[in-house]
Amino acid sequence: MSFTLAAAPCRQNPARLLLGPGPSPVHPRVLAALAEPVLGHLDPCFLAIMAETRDLLRQVFGTENELTIPVSGTGSAGLEASLVNLLEPGDRAVVGVAGVFGERLAEVAARYGAEVHTVEAEWGRPLDPDAVRRAARAANPKLIAVVHAETSTGVRQDLAPIAAIARECGALTVVDAVTSLGGLEVAVDELGLDFVYSGTQKCLSCPPGLAPVTVSARAREAIAARRRPVASWYLDLGLVQRYWSQERFYHHTAPVNMIYALHEALGLIMAEGLAAVWRRHAANAAGALAGLAALGLEPLVAPAERLPSLVVVKVPAGVDEAAVRAALRERYNIEIGGGLGPLKGRVWRIGLMGHGSRWQHVTFLLAALGEILAAHGCGPGPGEAVAAAVAARPAG
Amino acid sequence: MSFTLAAAPCRQNPARLLLGPGPSPVHPRVLAALAEPVLGHLDPCFLAIMAETRDLLRQVFGTENELTIPVSGTGSAGLEASLVNLLEPGDRAVVGVAGVFGERLAEVAARYGAEVHTVEAEWGRPLDPDAVRRAARAANPKLIAVVHAETSTGVRQDLAPIAAIARECGALTVVDAVTSLGGLEVAVDELGLDFVYSGTQKCLSCPPGLAPVTVSARAREAIAARRRPVASWYLDLGLVQRYWSQERFYHHTAPVNMIYALHEALGLIMAEGLAAVWRRHAANAAGALAGLAALGLEPLVAPAERLPSLVVVKVPAGVDEAAVRAALRERYNIEIGGGLGPLKGRVWRIGLMGHGSRWQHVTFLLAALGEILAAHGCGPGPGEAVAAAVAARPAG
Repeated sequence: MSFTLAAAPCRQNPARLLLGPGPSPVHPRVLAALAEPVLGHLDPCFLAIMAETRDLLRQVFGTENELTIPVSGTGSAGLEASLVNLLEPGDRAVVGVAGVFGERLAEVAARYGAEVHTVEAEWGRPLDPDAVRRAARAANPKLIAVVHAETSTGVRQDLAPIAAIARECGALTVVDAVTSLGGLEVAVDELGLDFVYSGTQKCLSCPPGLAPVTVSARAREAIAARRRPVASWYLDLGLVQRYWSQERFYHHTAPVNMIYALHEALGLIMAEGLAAVWRRHAANAAGALAGLAALGLEPLVAPAERLPSLVVVKVPAGVDEAAVRAALRERYNIEIGGGLGPLKGRVWRIGLMGHGSRWQHVTFLLAALGEILAAHGCGPGPGEAVAAAVAARPAG
Repeated sequence: MSFTLAAAPCRQNPARLLLGPGPSPVHPRVLAALAEPVLGHLDPCFLAIMAETRDLLRQVFGTENELTIPVSGTGSAGLEASLVNLLEPGDRAVVGVAGVFGERLAEVAARYGAEVHTVEAEWGRPLDPDAVRRAARAANPKLIAVVHAETSTGVRQDLAPIAAIARECGALTVVDAVTSLGGLEVAVDELGLDFVYSGTQKCLSCPPGLAPVTVSARAREAIAARRRPVASWYLDLGLVQRYWSQERFYHHTAPVNMIYALHEALGLIMAEGLAAVWRRHAANAAGALAGLAALGLEPLVAPAERLPSLVVVKVPAGVDEAAVRAALRERYNIEIGGGLGPLKGRVWRIGLMGHGSRWQHVTFLLAALGEILAAHGCGPGPGEAVAAAVAARPAG
């Protein structure tokens, strides 16, 4: 019998340079780990990989939390795991909304029956801690949920004041660290954060498919004190934890090869050193922003509020932003992201995440974008952009 | 900085021969597809792979259902997706329980607030359709949920009478096809099944991590007619479908590389031909059972009720079953499964699934097991086992 796949990744994969909001480029060693033979989910060799993966995740999260594991789904499953385990119908939650992922936190909390009090900020700005404090004092919530790195705007939320407010009110903190973990510090224990989730396909530079989470002892006590079972069986961390613990109680078959990949990706971060990885993200973002400024592209976000992993700039008036992205993809094999929601058509989102945060990518993107914009009659061209980036790049 | 992973799959992976209840061995081409460069989840090249994956899944499921996709989680996420989308608090569900996976269906239905009526059968037997009919007539349920291939017992449930009962009662059918899809026919449209889910790591011979599902028009109408939103945001198929449709509405980042792997695995099945794949599973199971019988190992399940993908035999009296499995793993690099629940310590579960269902694996397992059992003073040894298997193997 003859059968041929029409769309086969091994023949037609363009190996795009991924400089969008995620997924990010993956190191060849991580892809090689992904392709290792499958092992049984209770095989002693696989259990050793699981144990080391947990240890490495704790280091990247900055925590000693026992319950630190990759949930078997994408980052959105991590979001859902946080709220479905902590919330019961009628619980009150204060949720910060300044972009798509804050909106999603509010929507999911409402699905699980919580009374949701949102605190809003303009897209492109972080939350005002005073507004969060007022909402928390008024609502006396079980938890306060915020996004550390808002992927739709490129804004970094300062977590220290949010954690302090939560302690004042006796509330738990839930933090979306999808676009921050591995790219900037997420100091879980130092700040006393209670439930932090991430995804593998951003600054950890692993394919999408797992959601690392870490849960404090205080949050585990809150889960243990629930009046009714966790609504989701698949994401019930009380059950999932029994598989990841020495008990090895069967819950579901772990996504074995994805865990190989995460293990290898975390090993690469440790080999470079966490602080060095964070410095690299900051330096490449600074260089990129200088080059983009030379092209006349204004950043959406104020300097103190920017992410080092995701640079967001405004589209110049009169430029067809989708045509520019298509030209980047078709002529240079580069992917960048457009805007979402109220920013649709108004911004470009340029991810410099994990293995993607490299000087060679910054200079190539500036050369390509400079050329395309110049052809649209916009900006001084690629040479000035790259020169400005080189001049602005921090030493080290 | 120097850092070395202690447990690295690329140096320590024993490439175990996976003849347990799953995961199953994966073809090298599927592993190669898994390691292809990551593409963006909206990249035109990736969208072509998604489209072909859906077409191939429809063929394997025997359906033209528009809503046929891989859910971004393991088989257990498919189970949860079926019940969370179809059930609302107070709905009545009849659930067949004759093993771990029937128990799980009942537990998850209860978590989502359904009034669950179980129909039980002894572990090792299928459900009695008359008992299902009586329960369905008494309960007048919204759905009837059964397990097609019970991984804890090796029993095949005949689906035709269950589907007929559901039609009589105006109920929807939910079918767990985790250990059947790709190994035996799952005739979704011919039988009129409404929500069927599977996993990638059994007869599809792909690493664990995705849950193929197919949903009938009737079931989609039931979902559209819900009084309240689907409790799970991550598994809300109304939202997930908007990403898999032409709309490409962002929901969550697809597990891109796992979808490459599933696409390649489905292509291999089509290249061999579905009917030929099913025949191969049946022939290898028949040969294995004959060889196991020659070793004095009695099957748990009656001939008409057996799965071709999972052979379950009773442990002979006086044999330490865990020691035999450890010897298979340590001396022959073979994994087989032990029993669960009431069958713990009493059976071995031997998976011959997908790429694992091969004559070379049958003969090697019989040679190894025959030798180990003979050393325990049990059975006639490997030669007789292999000879019996060869004699019993169906032609073709």
